[in-house]
Amino acid sequence: MLEALKKQVWNANLELVRRGVVIYTWGNVSGIDRSAGLVVIKPSGVSYDAMQPDDMVVVELETGARVDGKWNPSSDTQTHLELYRAFSSLGGITHTHSVHAIAFAQAGRDIPALGTTHADYFYGDIPCTRSLTQEEVQTAYELNTGKVIAETLRERSIDPLAVPGIVVRNHGPFTWGADADASVYHAVVLETVAEMALKTLLLNPEAVLPQFVLDKHYFRKHGPNAYYGQK
Amino acid sequence: MLEALKKQVWNANLELVRRGVVIYTWGNVSGIDRSAGLVVIKPSGVSYDAMQPDDMVVVELETGARVDGKWNPSSDTQTHLELYRAFSSLGGITHTHSVHAIAFAQAGRDIPALGTTHADYFYGDIPCTRSLTQEEVQTAYELNTGKVIAETLRERSIDPLAVPGIVVRNHGPFTWGADADASVYHAVVLETVAEMALKTLLLNPEAVLPQFVLDKHYFRKHGPNAYYGQK
Amino acid sequence: MLEALKKQVWNANLELVRRGVVIYTWGNVSGIDRSAGLVVIKPSGVSYDAMQPDDMVVVELETGARVDGKWNPSSDTQTHLELYRAFSSLGGITHTHSVHAIAFAQAGRDIPALGTTHADYFYGDIPCTRSLTQEEVQTAYELNTGKVIAETLRERSIDPLAVPGIVVRNHGPFTWGADADASVYHAVVLETVAEMALKTLLLNPEAVLPQFVLDKHYFRKHGPNAYYGQK
Amino acid sequence: MLEALKKQVWNANLELVRRGVVIYTWGNVSGIDRSAGLVVIKPSGVSYDAMQPDDMVVVELETGARVDGKWNPSSDTQTHLELYRAFSSLGGITHTHSVHAIAFAQAGRDIPALGTTHADYFYGDIPCTRSLTQEEVQTAYELNTGKVIAETLRERSIDPLAVPGIVVRNHGPFTWGADADASVYHAVVLETVAEMALKTLLLNPEAVLPQFVLDKHYFRKHGPNAYYGQK
Repeated sequence: MLEALKKQVWNANLELVRRGVVIYTWGNVSGIDRSAGLVVIKPSGVSYDAMQPDDMVVVELETGARVDGKWNPSSDTQTHLELYRAFSSLGGITHTHSVHAIAFAQAGRDIPALGTTHADYFYGDIPCTRSLTQEEVQTAYELNTGKVIAETLRERSIDPLAVPGIVVRNHGPFTWGADADASVYHAVVLETVAEMALKTLLLNPEAVLPQFVLDKHYFRKHGPNAYYGQK
Repeated sequence: MLEALKKQVWNANLELVRRGVVIYTWGNVSGIDRSAGLVVIKPSGVSYDAMQPDDMVVVELETGARVDGKWNPSSDTQTHLELYRAFSSLGGITHTHSVHAIAFAQAGRDIPALGTTHADYFYGDIPCTRSLTQEEVQTAYELNTGKVIAETLRERSIDPLAVPGIVVRNHGPFTWGADADASVYHAVVLETVAEMALKTLLLNPEAVLPQFVLDKHYFRKHGPNAYYGQK
Repeated sequence: MLEALKKQVWNANLELVRRGVVIYTWGNVSGIDRSAGLVVIKPSGVSYDAMQPDDMVVVELETGARVDGKWNPSSDTQTHLELYRAFSSLGGITHTHSVHAIAFAQAGRDIPALGTTHADYFYGDIPCTRSLTQEEVQTAYELNTGKVIAETLRERSIDPLAVPGIVVRNHGPFTWGADADASVYHAVVLETVAEMALKTLLLNPEAVLPQFVLDKHYFRKHGPNAYYGQK
Repeated sequence: MLEALKKQVWNANLELVRRGVVIYTWGNVSGIDRSAGLVVIKPSGVSYDAMQPDDMVVVELETGARVDGKWNPSSDTQTHLELYRAFSSLGGITHTHSVHAIAFAQAGRDIPALGTTHADYFYGDIPCTRSLTQEEVQTAYELNTGKVIAETLRERSIDPLAVPGIVVRNHGPFTWGADADASVYHAVVLETVAEMALKTLLLNPEAVLPQFVLDKHYFRKHGPNAYYGQK
């Protein structure tokens, strides 16, 4: 069932380890088959070393019910599902505990757009969500984590594909993209620009990026007038 | 004698090097056989490259007397033994000189619980002990290091399995767990959350974690209502 | 066509990955054949893993027109060409997104000459350019990036081979040298001295280097009285 | 000629790269044969990749004259020779450009003894020398670098084997030991404790280490009452 997607999601999970943004079982990647209404996601707490494509778990987008696979799905599954339901443009989602992204999450600060590396992939600051309330944490915590991400993007009028990631307050980064691979790519970029931003702020707490540089770099890679890469 | 435990303790010591929390001979792991009243521990100052399971040293829990092995046990053996005697729930203990944990130890600061990575493994701040007195240092130093760790946990009413690690003032981290492997795992987690905390404090010296987020993350992985991982 | 130069440029691009100053496709190296008036440069957005010497693109120095190769050249090609036209001593140029160099670029600060590691390769502070104006960004951005680099070097009366690198404000480092290999070498040195400078400034915001130490170290490696290395 | 010493010095130079404290040709190790009055040292500016034991250079302790080898010796040779002449206990010397050690050198600050990792190898703060004067730099610079190191140790009444390293102001670390291997070991330790100290000072600028802890840790590994390691 969904063998190709399972393989992609499996490989995307391993890529997190290869890129140094995850240790142990501290991350998870999912991918969606929109036509089938099914999401493929990493099992919960299973070692990356032994994990095979068949260990991926298939759940229903709407209910979260497991329809294939022998393991429990990632404990963050409800967060992934809520984001897929909230934004139909998402094809893959990644969650990591990468160090510099978490530093911003724990500090309760947006990762500011300070340079062209950031602007090449994220059209503006990467938001830090508000804290969840006590009630949101105690009832349907993972679902509410998804809801607070969606709320943040909507309140700031952010197209999720233009800013393909966020840091959840006191928690860590979630990224997404057209598919599982793209969401992993954005997880690595988010960690890297977080490290750059932290070190920039140590040198100049008032650093800023002009809007027209942000526009230039983002739109030379994205949208109808893009001219980066190959046709 | 205790071949299986020797092998586990040997492998746990090597894991410290593989995970990047130890260079040269700067760490030690032990494991205990409670029924036999014996502790298996790394030899003192022997290179990790050549070390084999048979190089592990077996000592008596109560006296520290060597009952098997050709080497002197780790110079920190008395610290390990004191902790095993003070807390019957401990099955393995690890000591490292990992950089960020030591930064907190040398700064004399607790590693504050600032996010969910921390909360997944440590139920609250990771304490920094008081300094040992001159007398404690000059007489039975390693034993007194164990005593000051136990004192710190008791004064703060901390269950050692709920906060499976500490930093000793001006010295470095000790971690523990159900067995040697778990104590190494906690050594790696402690180093990682220390790095996250240091970088968070550079971005926001006032960062805090709400208690109900700490509760949620700790108890979704630990205790009777845990739902992380597989059954 | 220019097979030897293609091979050198290809290898120089891969060296960026091996040295840890580039991830994904985030860098580009070029080399010039002055007698032919042709520049060999990395293709745009092609993965380093699969890249072969034949994937390099050949463009005309004066017009930027592609004369050989199946891919679009790097989107930064016009910056490279402008620098080759402005300074006839340049044989190779490298652009990276290395973290510490970018921290200075984003902070809008020169990388100050604070020690002999810096002085061995860069005769003075490594400049940070001014910001490009909105008009410069919106019209011929990559060409204007080259122009603002040249403007900065000229206004500060810097011989580009004596200070073989710069950071472009809000963007990142460009380095150069006698050939492609030398430009990569300088990219790695620039990143390293940027890390040293950032950490020095954390310890002492007023750190400086006496001019006569700068002179000594630079001129023991460069110029007619150099005595470092082999004859 | 001195084949065993050449092999040890060659291997010690390569160990600098394996331990991550040197890139390119940025380091040098020497060893001395006291009975012969000869020093074996790395050649200047030769790549580590291709270097063989036979590439080591043999020079006279008193005159610096090359008596064996086909290359020029390291440009820092006169610094090594001056230290061997000043302190008869030295058997090997290492110079690196490791990042955190250089941060202290460039900041003009001692690396303070803040914890037991430091105290296990360095009995007190690791000094930062004064700046060389303009005349010292312009005349016999490398020799004067050795002289200012010796002056610093003597003015502070430091036994060089008790504090087996120093940072030269605006330059970087020199370490030493009973032989070439020991000097490399101390170079790695010095870099590590420099990183720990820098990060400690970010958390607590007033951090200190009690003298009796320094005494305890140093003397449990060194001197007649040492009990660390094997007999």
